[in-house]
Amino acid sequence: MSDKRTLKVAVLGCGAVGSQVVRLLTEQSDDLTARVGVPVELVGVGVRRLDAPRDVDLPDGLLTTDVAGLVARADVDLVVEVIGGIEPARTLILSALDNGASVVTANKALLAEDGPTLFEAAEKAERDLYYEAAVAGAIPILRPLRESLAGDKVTRVLGIVNGTTNFILDKMDSSGAGFSEALEEAQELGYAEADPTADVEGFDAAAKAAILASLAFHSRVTAADVYREGISDVTAADVASARDMGSVVKLLAICELRPGPNGDQVAARVHPAMIPRTHPLASVREAFNAVFVESEAAGQLMFYGPGAGGAPTASAVLGDLVTVARNRLAGTRGMGESAYADRAVQPMGETRTRYHVAIDVDDRAGVLAAVANAFADHDVSIQTVRQEGRGADAQLVVVSHAAPDAALAATVEQLRSMDIVREVTSVMRVEGGDE
Amino acid sequence: MSDKRTLKVAVLGCGAVGSQVVRLLTEQSDDLTARVGVPVELVGVGVRRLDAPRDVDLPDGLLTTDVAGLVARADVDLVVEVIGGIEPARTLILSALDNGASVVTANKALLAEDGPTLFEAAEKAERDLYYEAAVAGAIPILRPLRESLAGDKVTRVLGIVNGTTNFILDKMDSSGAGFSEALEEAQELGYAEADPTADVEGFDAAAKAAILASLAFHSRVTAADVYREGISDVTAADVASARDMGSVVKLLAICELRPGPNGDQVAARVHPAMIPRTHPLASVREAFNAVFVESEAAGQLMFYGPGAGGAPTASAVLGDLVTVARNRLAGTRGMGESAYADRAVQPMGETRTRYHVAIDVDDRAGVLAAVANAFADHDVSIQTVRQEGRGADAQLVVVSHAAPDAALAATVEQLRSMDIVREVTSVMRVEGGDE
Repeated sequence: MSDKRTLKVAVLGCGAVGSQVVRLLTEQSDDLTARVGVPVELVGVGVRRLDAPRDVDLPDGLLTTDVAGLVARADVDLVVEVIGGIEPARTLILSALDNGASVVTANKALLAEDGPTLFEAAEKAERDLYYEAAVAGAIPILRPLRESLAGDKVTRVLGIVNGTTNFILDKMDSSGAGFSEALEEAQELGYAEADPTADVEGFDAAAKAAILASLAFHSRVTAADVYREGISDVTAADVASARDMGSVVKLLAICELRPGPNGDQVAARVHPAMIPRTHPLASVREAFNAVFVESEAAGQLMFYGPGAGGAPTASAVLGDLVTVARNRLAGTRGMGESAYADRAVQPMGETRTRYHVAIDVDDRAGVLAAVANAFADHDVSIQTVRQEGRGADAQLVVVSHAAPDAALAATVEQLRSMDIVREVTSVMRVEGGDE
Repeated sequence: MSDKRTLKVAVLGCGAVGSQVVRLLTEQSDDLTARVGVPVELVGVGVRRLDAPRDVDLPDGLLTTDVAGLVARADVDLVVEVIGGIEPARTLILSALDNGASVVTANKALLAEDGPTLFEAAEKAERDLYYEAAVAGAIPILRPLRESLAGDKVTRVLGIVNGTTNFILDKMDSSGAGFSEALEEAQELGYAEADPTADVEGFDAAAKAAILASLAFHSRVTAADVYREGISDVTAADVASARDMGSVVKLLAICELRPGPNGDQVAARVHPAMIPRTHPLASVREAFNAVFVESEAAGQLMFYGPGAGGAPTASAVLGDLVTVARNRLAGTRGMGESAYADRAVQPMGETRTRYHVAIDVDDRAGVLAAVANAFADHDVSIQTVRQEGRGADAQLVVVSHAAPDAALAATVEQLRSMDIVREVTSVMRVEGGDE
């Protein structure tokens, strides 16, 4: 362990987040010293290319392309990893821990894919591994889940954890635009990347869902355990249909405790869903994020703020850095991974959901009965049916009660095969109301 | 220090919160053991009367009226104080710390009045003193301010931190009721006490503002430093006037960093204010609480949830208990008080605010000019003037730009003395928009 008169920090990566981490470390150094107890000294910034354009003025000699060498330095106490992606981030973090450094990372993809490897390495090295910035940017959500709610039983986490998709869906809702048009606008404004797949198809949200579910339910949940649907199939008609029933379409990360054959299971999923406009998450606009938490004693909590961006993410990183630095000075560690509950993951097909289904039908006697029978065939109970239009425009909008997702999917399949059904025009899950 | 095979807890107080703390400690004991690392054993519950009705079944022999004796027991590791009020709570907490116990409390009044005495005692005893439950019930707000934002610069905290007054104001807004009528309904529904002074006059919110300002700005702020106005003078006309300008009246706890002659000062105040309906705090209904935080890097964050109630408050207490217990096992302590910034408190008269003023005026030439002159006399710039009605019903509604509160108050005094002003019908500060 290094000399405790200063704590030495290496930052890996100097992009949008890394440059803000470096700026805050430099500009707020007096405050950080007061809050940590000793000066926090930036000793190196690992980058791929020395001559890339950067948003921050770096003191001379700090930049290095020898990132592995930086991590291996004997005098580095704290390593901040904001490179992102699986490799070389994983190797660098493992090397840092192995070398005795404490680590702060914002790397949701790596944590969701291979968290247990990292947690075990931190445990073995007896070092902290903190990652508040990995979920919902600046919003403090992991620390509250891990610590503030440690004496409570969390039953459900419902989050808007991807700003890109929320921006697109909000745009579709407010302007009536289709998905492609809204995506294009998001790209023009810098809210979506040129290749938007990770955001739009829900991979990013699924990684965050895995992290949230692991913490909330004290179990190991990886990205592979999370059922995932993106928003690229959401149509203007879906959004309009949601509006007709006083709802709005959001891409939700949903983590729940659900009864299973041998006790509670964890269900984790990411998909677009209709939620009532009166739900606190419905008013989360543009690229903002919010996480709604239900627990037995605390009831309903919501955490809201900017879910991405260099400075907000850097704020979360620095918060972790102060805690980790203080732990290090005290010769202690924060709460590490807690997977004692070791709950099984419930398959999506068994998870109870509710469906909203809009169907173009022939306008003749017996249509409603036939449709109702299709639901009954799969033991799905109907909450409401609304008939709209007449003749060639006749449409039925059905909202089901909760049923196993597989039964609902099978019901939709059956509807699609029926003669009286011209087209199933909108299928979407419904969340945030009574079952 | 006690045997580390179990941690022994004494709970002081067994009312609405205490009984829920006891229930959670008992019902969730397996989870608590897993999360803390060793069993957490309830060894005593201190009460005033053994025969009072309680919401929880207590194991035999745990109840005692010898509260001082319970706190002095050599084997007690953790003391939870949920008696409330100044004495005997202060003496008991000081005795617990002196005796080597770590303390978790929900006592906002005591912390706001005499926090420094408690913090010094904790420091001297090298023990934890945690109090998440003291502000906004179950909402994790102190831990995020203290830890998550420790690497950021918080500039402003705007909170709805009193459920009683929010319920009353929400009722006045939704039904057009006057203050007395809404208060009566709140009392009938159990949202307000028989003597509602502490809530209605803003004392409770001021205590919370002091705690929030201390943490946010790393300075010592006590209840005496907080400017305070309650809601008992808010009229149905004020609420209607707010609605006319797309706003809603809320009792806000406002803590800000403000430029002063020798660097930033802390301004802390509690008063009713009009905020735009588009502001995230505007949609906080009924008895819910929410805290809106602005910081330099993170931007705008909001934390929302139940601000009171036995179970929600107990959730916050138990969260602290788990952290404090883990710290104790590790032989360490969490972040204690941090008052290094030691900022001066700005007097309310110097704090820049904005006023909304509605005036019944004579409907004749020159009235607007005379009113405008009254503002100009005090160097207050006007943002908007709206004239409503004619003749005997003529009314001017003026919204100012930001100016020192004393200048605004003097302007209103001058308006009241003017011949052409029949009555100043509504005066209220405006928050949550541009200055």
